[in-house]
Amino acid sequence: MAASNAAPPCRGAAEIVDAVVAGETRAIDETNAAFARIKARDGRVRAWRWLNTDFSRSLAYAVDEAPVKGPLAGAGVGLKDIIDTKDWPTENGVDTDKGRRPGTDATAVTRLIAAGAVILGKTVTTECAFLHPRETVNPHDPERTPGGSSMGSGAAVGGGMVPLALGSQTVGSVLRPASFCGAWAMKPSWGLIPRTGMLQLSHYLDHIGVYGRSARDLALAIDVLSGDDGHDPASQGVAPSRLTAGLGARPLNRPRFIFLRDYAWPEIEPSSAELFGNLAEQLKAPTANMPPLYNDIFDIAQDVLARDAAFNLGQRYRKAGDLISAPLREWVVRGFSVGVERYLTQMNRLQKMRVAFPKVISEFDAVIAPATPGEAPKDLTNTGSPKFNLLWTSIGVPAVNVPALKGPAGMPVGVQVIGRYGADLETLRAAAWLGHELGAKVVD
Amino acid sequence: MAASNAAPPCRGAAEIVDAVVAGETRAIDETNAAFARIKARDGRVRAWRWLNTDFSRSLAYAVDEAPVKGPLAGAGVGLKDIIDTKDWPTENGVDTDKGRRPGTDATAVTRLIAAGAVILGKTVTTECAFLHPRETVNPHDPERTPGGSSMGSGAAVGGGMVPLALGSQTVGSVLRPASFCGAWAMKPSWGLIPRTGMLQLSHYLDHIGVYGRSARDLALAIDVLSGDDGHDPASQGVAPSRLTAGLGARPLNRPRFIFLRDYAWPEIEPSSAELFGNLAEQLKAPTANMPPLYNDIFDIAQDVLARDAAFNLGQRYRKAGDLISAPLREWVVRGFSVGVERYLTQMNRLQKMRVAFPKVISEFDAVIAPATPGEAPKDLTNTGSPKFNLLWTSIGVPAVNVPALKGPAGMPVGVQVIGRYGADLETLRAAAWLGHELGAKVVD
Repeated sequence: MAASNAAPPCRGAAEIVDAVVAGETRAIDETNAAFARIKARDGRVRAWRWLNTDFSRSLAYAVDEAPVKGPLAGAGVGLKDIIDTKDWPTENGVDTDKGRRPGTDATAVTRLIAAGAVILGKTVTTECAFLHPRETVNPHDPERTPGGSSMGSGAAVGGGMVPLALGSQTVGSVLRPASFCGAWAMKPSWGLIPRTGMLQLSHYLDHIGVYGRSARDLALAIDVLSGDDGHDPASQGVAPSRLTAGLGARPLNRPRFIFLRDYAWPEIEPSSAELFGNLAEQLKAPTANMPPLYNDIFDIAQDVLARDAAFNLGQRYRKAGDLISAPLREWVVRGFSVGVERYLTQMNRLQKMRVAFPKVISEFDAVIAPATPGEAPKDLTNTGSPKFNLLWTSIGVPAVNVPALKGPAGMPVGVQVIGRYGADLETLRAAAWLGHELGAKVVD
Repeated sequence: MAASNAAPPCRGAAEIVDAVVAGETRAIDETNAAFARIKARDGRVRAWRWLNTDFSRSLAYAVDEAPVKGPLAGAGVGLKDIIDTKDWPTENGVDTDKGRRPGTDATAVTRLIAAGAVILGKTVTTECAFLHPRETVNPHDPERTPGGSSMGSGAAVGGGMVPLALGSQTVGSVLRPASFCGAWAMKPSWGLIPRTGMLQLSHYLDHIGVYGRSARDLALAIDVLSGDDGHDPASQGVAPSRLTAGLGARPLNRPRFIFLRDYAWPEIEPSSAELFGNLAEQLKAPTANMPPLYNDIFDIAQDVLARDAAFNLGQRYRKAGDLISAPLREWVVRGFSVGVERYLTQMNRLQKMRVAFPKVISEFDAVIAPATPGEAPKDLTNTGSPKFNLLWTSIGVPAVNVPALKGPAGMPVGVQVIGRYGADLETLRAAAWLGHELGAKVVD
């Protein structure tokens, strides 16, 4: 399963930053090594949509020349191609946007560069971050999907090309590729990372998420990306996170986990049902079903997403004809059919679920649940099921993929660690403990 | 203008609490004095809808017997009759709800009682907290409106019957009565005080607000009322405020004020235009118009409120016939006419206004603006214009009424002090400074 490797193996962002700060490596060397890995591997994986090696190298030189190094100094990052960049095109994975050059950087991009990260390019997204797949394949098996919609970002990190990448999650678009490709990933609490400059599907459901090689990589990146930017209403008044400091605090005690089965559980694959049963036993985590309040979450989230997507994309794509796929058109059409009473009813039910969740897990530190029904399917015509992520995304709580398990074909299977809204640090600490306990690591 | 007075004058909540804690008075004595004032004055003012003197006295005795006194020990509070109470009826000011007994206390009520406050009863609200007035008159002139919709709460505090009262503000329902009746009042940032157990008109616009006799009274009450209660999604993850400690911190420096004129300015009364022109000069506050982005706020807020009210009240009142007023029925009908695209468009515009506001006042600590077009109108058929409060409520920012000015008839005119979202302490400190500078006080 190891990919061919014509360059030094990929280190984590945390290690790279430490080495750059210590003067043991330079940002330009790390950047050249990343491009060498991309060159060696991406012909097969096709995770990358746009490179601009000259500009990336100019970012690296700037880091090397800077007298003070930022918290991501020299760490290479891939950006899902729905995140606006002025130095690379941003096509949102859709033919209507061919050649689109937004002219300004998204907040996330500005913050990454200011922190010393080296943007390596744009990664492939499904069409408008919905379901219709594009060219990326799973780095561990080219006949399998990498998942979606952040398919390029998941494959680029899970395939060992770069230490960090950004994705977006409205249903299951960060955690699913992470599970299928074997990467660490985190979707923080709704609003923690402002989404300014990213294609908007749904104000209430969209999140930016991060891929990395360790819990510490995620902490470093989220600390840089988080906090009110004065533009995204979801982030108004939100303070930047301090996950890196909190993650380092010792002791890292064994968390009290609960294994929760939600509406999606009947779709679990038998091999994963066994894996998770064993894991719960190993962790002494009691097993429970989500309360009936959460039974209709699938329909609720679909109504809200479809209606919001029709609002956000409808005018843009309604007359796009063959430039958009039939599935995307169906989403927009479905959205136009959701009336205001239904929309408000569903939003109301969603909010009740949000506020009730702390009581559901009141005696526990974090939840474990499958991140996907099983291994990445041998099917490149779709990106697999997001159903195991949908509930947690919809209620806005932090969720981490721990690349800890293997399926029957030896492919990665992720453990999803979920916490309370706003408890991003506790959730990431629980995930880090679990990763350590299970020896989780990214297999390049 | 002084009301007839058969009982000792009303002290502020802060003074009462200090005296109770020092053993200089007892909660039961304060409670009896409050009822004596109500008896002496309310025949004319009609601020109170429900009293239950036995139960109020039992709360007072419990405070006197408690070995540890809470932060509101012995302070009397009136509650707008849209806030659920199990020991008083809650009729929402509407005939359809005659005799309604909700069976549980609202979060605000539970918190007040736990803090040692003595609930004195329920105050008159307009019909469903909308525009249609009920029986309360202005305590300083019975031919004038006290404002609305929190008409009883404003009149009870402005008329010197009780130190504290709760109201709600969806457009201008806390600050307008405060300006007309001459009370201190604050509507904190959206979400700071959970609204669980209060009649809901609009998730995005509804706020609980507080009336008191000083900035310190407001701080004491808001500290008790604020913070996530596990039920209101607007308050999820919100920490309780610490305004009392922050308000006491010295020095209380002169704030940098800006005098902002918004869409409502053309409706200012000439006498108030002069008052505020002079005030801006006295404070050396530059005068500016709100940027054009905010021009359409009236239509936007009306659409959102009407649509939300139709959702929240529509089923309940649509077949109520003559049990609801024509104006309320018109609101609901209007709401049903707002479709989902228009609703989402208006919400989107509203959110843009929210996030842009910090830049509008970036070089200032707080805004001053009129709280009402002028003095309370000599008209008991309506509650006066909420237009000078509408923008600030809609963008969710903290707003304080400082009872500092007098109009041509000698009636109170309030100065509205407005701040950034989440900057409740800075806003209240600015208001406290202004109150001190202008010698603001409640005239009983």
